[in-house]
Amino acid sequence: MTSLNETHDPNLRSWIASANDANGDFPIQNLPFGAFKRAGSNEALRGGVAIGDQIVDLAAVHSAGIFDGLAADAALAGSQTTLNALMGMGPATWSALRLALSKALREGSDQQQAMAACLVPQSEAQYGMPAHIGDYTDFYASIHHATNIGKLFRPNNPLLPNYQWIPIGYHGRSSSIVVSGTDFPRPVGQRRSPEGQPPGFGASTRMDYELEVGIFVGGGNELGQPITIDQAEDHIFGLCLLNDWSARDIQAWEYQPLGPFLGKSFASTISPWIITTEALAPYRTAWTRPEDHPQPLPYLESEANRASGGFDVQLEVLIETAQMRDGGQSPQRLSLGNFRHAYWTAAQMLTHHTVNGCNMRPGDFFGSGTMSGPEDGSQGALIELTRGGKEPLTLDNGQERKFLEDGDAIILRGWCQKDGAPRIGFGEARGMVLPARN
Amino acid sequence: MTSLNETHDPNLRSWIASANDANGDFPIQNLPFGAFKRAGSNEALRGGVAIGDQIVDLAAVHSAGIFDGLAADAALAGSQTTLNALMGMGPATWSALRLALSKALREGSDQQQAMAACLVPQSEAQYGMPAHIGDYTDFYASIHHATNIGKLFRPNNPLLPNYQWIPIGYHGRSSSIVVSGTDFPRPVGQRRSPEGQPPGFGASTRMDYELEVGIFVGGGNELGQPITIDQAEDHIFGLCLLNDWSARDIQAWEYQPLGPFLGKSFASTISPWIITTEALAPYRTAWTRPEDHPQPLPYLESEANRASGGFDVQLEVLIETAQMRDGGQSPQRLSLGNFRHAYWTAAQMLTHHTVNGCNMRPGDFFGSGTMSGPEDGSQGALIELTRGGKEPLTLDNGQERKFLEDGDAIILRGWCQKDGAPRIGFGEARGMVLPARN
Repeated sequence: MTSLNETHDPNLRSWIASANDANGDFPIQNLPFGAFKRAGSNEALRGGVAIGDQIVDLAAVHSAGIFDGLAADAALAGSQTTLNALMGMGPATWSALRLALSKALREGSDQQQAMAACLVPQSEAQYGMPAHIGDYTDFYASIHHATNIGKLFRPNNPLLPNYQWIPIGYHGRSSSIVVSGTDFPRPVGQRRSPEGQPPGFGASTRMDYELEVGIFVGGGNELGQPITIDQAEDHIFGLCLLNDWSARDIQAWEYQPLGPFLGKSFASTISPWIITTEALAPYRTAWTRPEDHPQPLPYLESEANRASGGFDVQLEVLIETAQMRDGGQSPQRLSLGNFRHAYWTAAQMLTHHTVNGCNMRPGDFFGSGTMSGPEDGSQGALIELTRGGKEPLTLDNGQERKFLEDGDAIILRGWCQKDGAPRIGFGEARGMVLPARN
Repeated sequence: MTSLNETHDPNLRSWIASANDANGDFPIQNLPFGAFKRAGSNEALRGGVAIGDQIVDLAAVHSAGIFDGLAADAALAGSQTTLNALMGMGPATWSALRLALSKALREGSDQQQAMAACLVPQSEAQYGMPAHIGDYTDFYASIHHATNIGKLFRPNNPLLPNYQWIPIGYHGRSSSIVVSGTDFPRPVGQRRSPEGQPPGFGASTRMDYELEVGIFVGGGNELGQPITIDQAEDHIFGLCLLNDWSARDIQAWEYQPLGPFLGKSFASTISPWIITTEALAPYRTAWTRPEDHPQPLPYLESEANRASGGFDVQLEVLIETAQMRDGGQSPQRLSLGNFRHAYWTAAQMLTHHTVNGCNMRPGDFFGSGTMSGPEDGSQGALIELTRGGKEPLTLDNGQERKFLEDGDAIILRGWCQKDGAPRIGFGEARGMVLPARN
């Protein structure tokens, strides 16, 4: 686990003024990675680092030869169209680049002039997928979500017996993961009819979102060579926001016995910036189990994981309906939760995933599963907030929602904040449901 | 659907003598694609085409400039380390390359001398993955398998109500797909214990294979743009053999509610050669439903799919235990089935998979699901042959098997054969279970 170092110093200030906004997402202590180009240009995508309202263009940094040693190697790797090569280099290299960036972007840096020539305003950027995602795995790590969903299907027995032992997950679809701002048509498919009748077919009538944290794997492992719980943290590159859009009617009819499929694979939206685990070091939290729950099997246990396996990240969902947008109203909050409530840590997910010998590749991606907290108002999906569509929400403008309507945009936001530490923001993951195609 | 043309003429003979063996897998009418290099060399992988006991090196064909037009474009695409680019070019280009290869390899071809310089003996080859598989989807298209498995879990209600309506499938793990000949350690994981006790942990004790047909997607589709049943055949590049190894104890404990995960993702073995749908044109079969079963929803229906959506491919499983190998005995057949018994066609799988807007990319891969036939002896997995391990098989050498032991190799073979048409072989998919790692 990364310890605190000079890059976390809350007193650091950048010569980029917008990075010194105490309420901004991207101060000099954050330095998240993404892939971008100038919008509308024929430029190649390349790696970039967010700072204030600017992006440090890693290809430009490489070309200008600003960094030395490991940091220079990392800037070269980060110049590619995706960050997979950088992700595969491991924590020593990631840290070297972070430290070099921190020094070059600080007030008083003698690299200011060279670095200023490598900046692109975020307002001019178009984002790409930060990595080629070889495999996407979606976990189910909120016991509150699993219980809320389970109650809808099995009121007397909401939680299956394996839940407290296994970080439950399933293979997801990687081709349909898109970056924030990519809108998509409402999916079409089969849905259950009353018994004895053929299933219905058409556009989904129960469109939902799922608030998740995305986890990017860094260095991989060979097939047959598990990653242990003690090694796992070094294999995690960073976190982002993930909206695992779900068509509940399609999902309910198709998912037995082999799990969710077309109810998910029409679109999954990620935020463009990956917050490194090093940037999140000040916000690691203890991981505990309620005393009356079983403790994990030894391969999922470590002192370090208990001490600081969790992440204190606040997670917010907002809705912007077409009426709000047309009327100039701000998006409205639907929920506020925190990643610290996860029943399993990211390290446990990775360890469990490879215990059978499954191989990870740099850029592989996990979803945490819908992050619902213990309290009302922290549920990370409409199906929970509306009790399966039975209790519609009334929005501030009087509109009602059981599930999402065409033109509804969902915006996920995340941030870390506490006294004595810099605010670390995640930016946002935004997507809009378009009408179904005919 | 490809119609018969001069490349299918059963009377064609090649100047490569081994291709004219009536019992061989790779006559001039087959021409399957794979990726290879000389074993032990530092060569790059590149595309190749099997003919008799030789491989046509597509990079060499390209360098020598033997072909013109679309076929030359295809040979260039086929020179890459994987066949994804060739797969993305579509059926007109695939056909042009097939015709050019057929003409150049025929007895009397004036390209014989140039082509002879492009051959590599299969005995000297090492195979790579024929494609980078972006996403792997495993279907469940044998109703006999679904019923046999369902009976083990739900004796009175083996088939779930969605089975006859939906080509059931789930997202699989692509990183752990390996090419024939790749052995792997027995996976480790959690398994169910008697109620009230913690789960067990250790090497799987119920290791199984699954006999499947693999389907490679050719040209892809944009997110949100379904592939219709009338378009689907043109998006399928070809078929191979797939062993979807399964750890039944890990699978049984983990799979609810989100489906199979670590019980599968330790290894899945494919055969090195992809048999194109054009090569299989003489072996297309009518697709029918039993009269007392519901007929599919309109989006999964077409006259062409009814007339010839199926494939008549014989599918064989053999076991070679360590004792057989050490004693010089031949592998023993465990089952013989046929892909024609699939309840859903490949075109229906692709159409269903994209009806929600899910995007395919060239080289995406489907498993058919375990192909068990209606009769005894055609079950494609040990769990079916041994009734969940309750009725062990006695092999010819006296060894018993409920599930696989360390050192057991499983060999899948496939072939098409009938009077008046050339034999089209699939080669084999072979893998061995090694002892679990400590």
